[in-house]
Amino acid sequence: MKKINFLFGIHCHQPVGNFEHVIEKAYQDSYLPLLKTLEAHPAIKFAVHYSGILYDWFMEKHPEYMDMLRRMVKRGQLEVLTGGYYEPILPLIPDNDKLGQIEMESNFIKKNLLAAPRGMWLTERVWEPGLPVVLSKAGVEYITVDDFHFISAGVPEDDLFGYFTTEDQGDTLRVFPINKHLRYLIPFRQPEEAIDYLRSIATEEGDRAAILADDGEKFGVWPGTARWVFEEKYLERLLTLLEENQEWIKMIHFSEYLDRHPSRGRVYLPDASYFEMMEWSLPTDAAITLEHIMADLARQNRVEEYKRFFKGGFFRNFQVKYPESNNMHKKMLYVSRKLQTSGGDKKLLKQAVEDLYKGQCNCAYWHGIFGGLYLCFLRDAIYHHLIKAENLVQKMRRGDAKFTEVVISDINKDGTEEVLLNNDLINVYCEPHAGGSIFELDFKPAAVNLLATLSRKKEWYHEKIRPEEQGEQAEGTAGTTSIHSKMPAMKEQGIEKLLQYDRLPRYSFFDHFIPPETTLEELKQDSFTELGDFVNGRYDFMPHRKPREASVTLQRNGMAGGQPVKVHKSVSLYAGQSILHIEYEVLNLSDKKLEIVFAPEINLHIFDADHLKETSSEAVKHIKLIDEASGVIVSLDTEKECSLERFPVFTVSQSESGVEKTYQGACMFLLFRLSIEPGKSWRDKLTLTLEV
Amino acid sequence: MKKINFLFGIHCHQPVGNFEHVIEKAYQDSYLPLLKTLEAHPAIKFAVHYSGILYDWFMEKHPEYMDMLRRMVKRGQLEVLTGGYYEPILPLIPDNDKLGQIEMESNFIKKNLLAAPRGMWLTERVWEPGLPVVLSKAGVEYITVDDFHFISAGVPEDDLFGYFTTEDQGDTLRVFPINKHLRYLIPFRQPEEAIDYLRSIATEEGDRAAILADDGEKFGVWPGTARWVFEEKYLERLLTLLEENQEWIKMIHFSEYLDRHPSRGRVYLPDASYFEMMEWSLPTDAAITLEHIMADLARQNRVEEYKRFFKGGFFRNFQVKYPESNNMHKKMLYVSRKLQTSGGDKKLLKQAVEDLYKGQCNCAYWHGIFGGLYLCFLRDAIYHHLIKAENLVQKMRRGDAKFTEVVISDINKDGTEEVLLNNDLINVYCEPHAGGSIFELDFKPAAVNLLATLSRKKEWYHEKIRPEEQGEQAEGTAGTTSIHSKMPAMKEQGIEKLLQYDRLPRYSFFDHFIPPETTLEELKQDSFTELGDFVNGRYDFMPHRKPREASVTLQRNGMAGGQPVKVHKSVSLYAGQSILHIEYEVLNLSDKKLEIVFAPEINLHIFDADHLKETSSEAVKHIKLIDEASGVIVSLDTEKECSLERFPVFTVSQSESGVEKTYQGACMFLLFRLSIEPGKSWRDKLTLTLEV
Repeated sequence: MKKINFLFGIHCHQPVGNFEHVIEKAYQDSYLPLLKTLEAHPAIKFAVHYSGILYDWFMEKHPEYMDMLRRMVKRGQLEVLTGGYYEPILPLIPDNDKLGQIEMESNFIKKNLLAAPRGMWLTERVWEPGLPVVLSKAGVEYITVDDFHFISAGVPEDDLFGYFTTEDQGDTLRVFPINKHLRYLIPFRQPEEAIDYLRSIATEEGDRAAILADDGEKFGVWPGTARWVFEEKYLERLLTLLEENQEWIKMIHFSEYLDRHPSRGRVYLPDASYFEMMEWSLPTDAAITLEHIMADLARQNRVEEYKRFFKGGFFRNFQVKYPESNNMHKKMLYVSRKLQTSGGDKKLLKQAVEDLYKGQCNCAYWHGIFGGLYLCFLRDAIYHHLIKAENLVQKMRRGDAKFTEVVISDINKDGTEEVLLNNDLINVYCEPHAGGSIFELDFKPAAVNLLATLSRKKEWYHEKIRPEEQGEQAEGTAGTTSIHSKMPAMKEQGIEKLLQYDRLPRYSFFDHFIPPETTLEELKQDSFTELGDFVNGRYDFMPHRKPREASVTLQRNGMAGGQPVKVHKSVSLYAGQSILHIEYEVLNLSDKKLEIVFAPEINLHIFDADHLKETSSEAVKHIKLIDEASGVIVSLDTEKECSLERFPVFTVSQSESGVEKTYQGACMFLLFRLSIEPGKSWRDKLTLTLEV
Repeated sequence: MKKINFLFGIHCHQPVGNFEHVIEKAYQDSYLPLLKTLEAHPAIKFAVHYSGILYDWFMEKHPEYMDMLRRMVKRGQLEVLTGGYYEPILPLIPDNDKLGQIEMESNFIKKNLLAAPRGMWLTERVWEPGLPVVLSKAGVEYITVDDFHFISAGVPEDDLFGYFTTEDQGDTLRVFPINKHLRYLIPFRQPEEAIDYLRSIATEEGDRAAILADDGEKFGVWPGTARWVFEEKYLERLLTLLEENQEWIKMIHFSEYLDRHPSRGRVYLPDASYFEMMEWSLPTDAAITLEHIMADLARQNRVEEYKRFFKGGFFRNFQVKYPESNNMHKKMLYVSRKLQTSGGDKKLLKQAVEDLYKGQCNCAYWHGIFGGLYLCFLRDAIYHHLIKAENLVQKMRRGDAKFTEVVISDINKDGTEEVLLNNDLINVYCEPHAGGSIFELDFKPAAVNLLATLSRKKEWYHEKIRPEEQGEQAEGTAGTTSIHSKMPAMKEQGIEKLLQYDRLPRYSFFDHFIPPETTLEELKQDSFTELGDFVNGRYDFMPHRKPREASVTLQRNGMAGGQPVKVHKSVSLYAGQSILHIEYEVLNLSDKKLEIVFAPEINLHIFDADHLKETSSEAVKHIKLIDEASGVIVSLDTEKECSLERFPVFTVSQSESGVEKTYQGACMFLLFRLSIEPGKSWRDKLTLTLEV
């Protein structure tokens, strides 16, 4: 009789920062009925992975779920996989944290589920060939990755019914290839089809493994699946069929298979994730080109022949594609280094490490079919935990002392130095070479970064929702029917009108010079005429360290309206005060009068009562915004009157439920009409006050 | 005036184990005239990298060359790049050794050339994204890699005239993309064309860099280049033109460019090498498929459009493609670990580290357009140095003590355990799960592995030299004109007749059962009928540890000639003796008489006087081979008479000068005619004696 081993694993995760009601719904729709259904079929052995975010939540909200897990582990039905506790992309975090996150989860599982995990769930299956060293150190014996990783490495598809051995520097790791067919069959087709497929790959030797490890959310959370999987009893029927065919379908644990069957050989996997992820990580223009190529191949019926040789992008390049993701990532690395060199109170340190690890949760660092990076509440959660971790380090090092400090370092790893001004209440991150702008402003008492505004970027799927672009893009591949080309669902009408792209990231204190006739609409569309060369320009900088004051002067000799101009900008912080001063001086270096509008741009990542308004106000000297979520109050005062142009920044992005617009922050241009005699200058002092 | 910076770097290397006269010729044809020509043009700044093998050789044979280098460094003409001293592929060696090899070269350069290197030559441009951590530790500020790495990562080609910043875990590294056009132009086209190209990319800002870093061997060593570059004065003319155009072509050092110009931004490069290398590292069948795809695209004129999305193979998979490379590689890792945990005499340790590092020289670990792995003298050099390093560890740990030991470990990292029997004179590596074979036999006094025979494998270019296969391979892509399809030069007539492929690696003591009528020709062609299931079979093993004896018994119940049979094989070593015993017992487990030929196969990697002979001898009880290179004498004695079938193993591989055959070793089948009654057994004892 032909037999087959069936190894079945499920991974469940909710992002750090997700809403309580969303998690509760996922629990009721998926996590709970899934486990209950499985509990009623004790012969069905399977593997589970929950991210620590869920474990924490179960412990607090549904301890009975933990009891159920423990019972099923005890009776041998469940094998529990470890992972990075807060679901980080392992290659993105320091080795020390990789180890720490995995040990945290393994220890949790040992303590609370009384199981010693041998396998690991690899977050988003993002693999790099250096991983075996740290995984081996963490006691991980095996992982599962997509079979595409293997096919890319040249392993014939017929060899994929088992596990392989890989190594780095002699440290080995076993790797199971996840079967693509099973991934498509379960739970999306009739259960009989899965059984038929298993029959088709069963052998007389009975030593093959059919391997499935996939998201638990496909069972109940994904649109439509709750009804299909549970109400219409897909899962019940599948498990019953598996039980009825126990004679030839052997449901065993991954680790049992490891112990009973030898490795299929050695393999080295290049850096990879699932194919879609590798498309998403491409720069947008390249993604569009690849999409057209794939469509072209589909028309020629050659996708299968070519696909194994296609590489798509590289996960780490999300950091290049989205500077805002890079800023979070490099802040995370910076905080991690601070912690590694930090002694102090053990309890505080443990808390800080926990916050750092939460700040490494992957979801906000990238974007594909899920909102990810586009979701403010996810980015906010990352910054919140990273700033909390920093606050704890500060507490350990300095107690409650009032202080200022200046740090000069290539924080964002772009190869040039940034300047950080810190005091006990605020961190300010200046980027001298990018317009002398400020790209992060942390208000420590609330643990928020007020400048985490995401700019509007072209995404590869935008061409599908903007009819006039479709024609353009299809040029040269006329008649192409894209494989992705079905129009995504619109969550709101008229969303395509928001498809505007920003020339610069939405940082603050970019120093624009613009024509007096510039309209709010032009500012909003980022289509106004830039008369100066300051926003993209390199500023010289000079930090000043005083006992109670930290400041940096930024200056650049450039051109504005065709005349030589110097902009001098001085940013200052004071010990114990949640105030930031920005003093501007614009010097007319020409021998003609300078008549121009000087327009510093400020983007505040704040959800205030007026966040939907587009306003033009005259004679403004005071602006106040109150963030609804954190209660933080930001006041901006100028000494001279200005005109204020304000509008909301909306991005357009896809999520699993369709295309949606997302409010990212309030953009404000302060318009000062300058009229400066030759050799003279104009000055103003801006004061930013933060309260909570 | 439009200006451009021109950064020009040259890398020179000769493999560990290369012949003295080959290096001397390279010196006379290339290294010497190259430097002399450059010396005569002091305004031409350039960068050089020599592997430590060359430095060692210069110091010994041509110290005047070192003087010349020192002079040119001193006057600021030369920037010296560091690297791994013995030119290892960095991702293949342990982090500790990466650091050690780079520091060894940097220290050498500091001491002997009085220069502090800031940049590094990356061996074979084999990049993995985890490298910045160790390079940063080693003080490396920048490297150069192929622009294809960048294009693959989605960087537009127009952005490649400068350097980028990458990082891992926050440790940064600057990366210069090597310009493909310059690589094709210099030294292969008229010098004026290079100047024209430089003119075409020069700008008013003058901040671009035209980047070239390439093999010095292209200047004089590659076929035909000595005449062109020096006799016909290509280089002289190029340098003169560069001097004449100094006003707009700024020859500056890489490090000067770094200091004067900012990074072009951040980039993350996926694991990669040059495109050809990535084709070579594919499994042969996949390489052929990719070749056909590329040919197909070439016909459609779409190579440029598609190529950036193609990944080819992954360098580390040379270890899977060639088990013999894996065996060397894993031996190297094993020796490296031994050294890392070894204390002892500092001088001996230093010597051992040097031998280990020599054993990491990349050339023998892979195969592409150069012979590489196919060249016995390169593989031999690797084993020689690795065994020497082991000998030194042995000396440090045990002095001159006679001993035996048994080590059970997954040495070759295939996921199953191997058994090592060692004494003070010999190492024996057994692979129980692969036919109970022996795949390494080190004779320590000569520091040789007598079993380093390479098996005959299909290579992607074989289809071009075997007319009947060309038709076959082209099936399905009829009419394809391959981009690689020009017939390679044959270094010998009739070479295509040697295109036979082995079913198994050429290890020793595979236990064949074959029909009595088997001919020498069938054995040679590996086309004989295998009547048993022992050669691919898994043997159970049981090690025995005695004070003066180390042995392992290997046994398997299998089938031979349709009858159940047990093969029992016991391998033994004795302290202080360079003798290996292999005792065979074949048991007839059936109730019928067993009439069959039992034929253990032995492949000796030895170049003896008879190495070309194909012989069939009767009634043999003693065989003696003398290796010409090492003087090692191998005697093989049996107790029972056997027939001996012996033939040379020849591989067919390409090198830069054409397709050549290479003698890899002597294959010997010992044929024993068995006639065993039911329940009875046949025994014999083989003795292998090694002398030098």
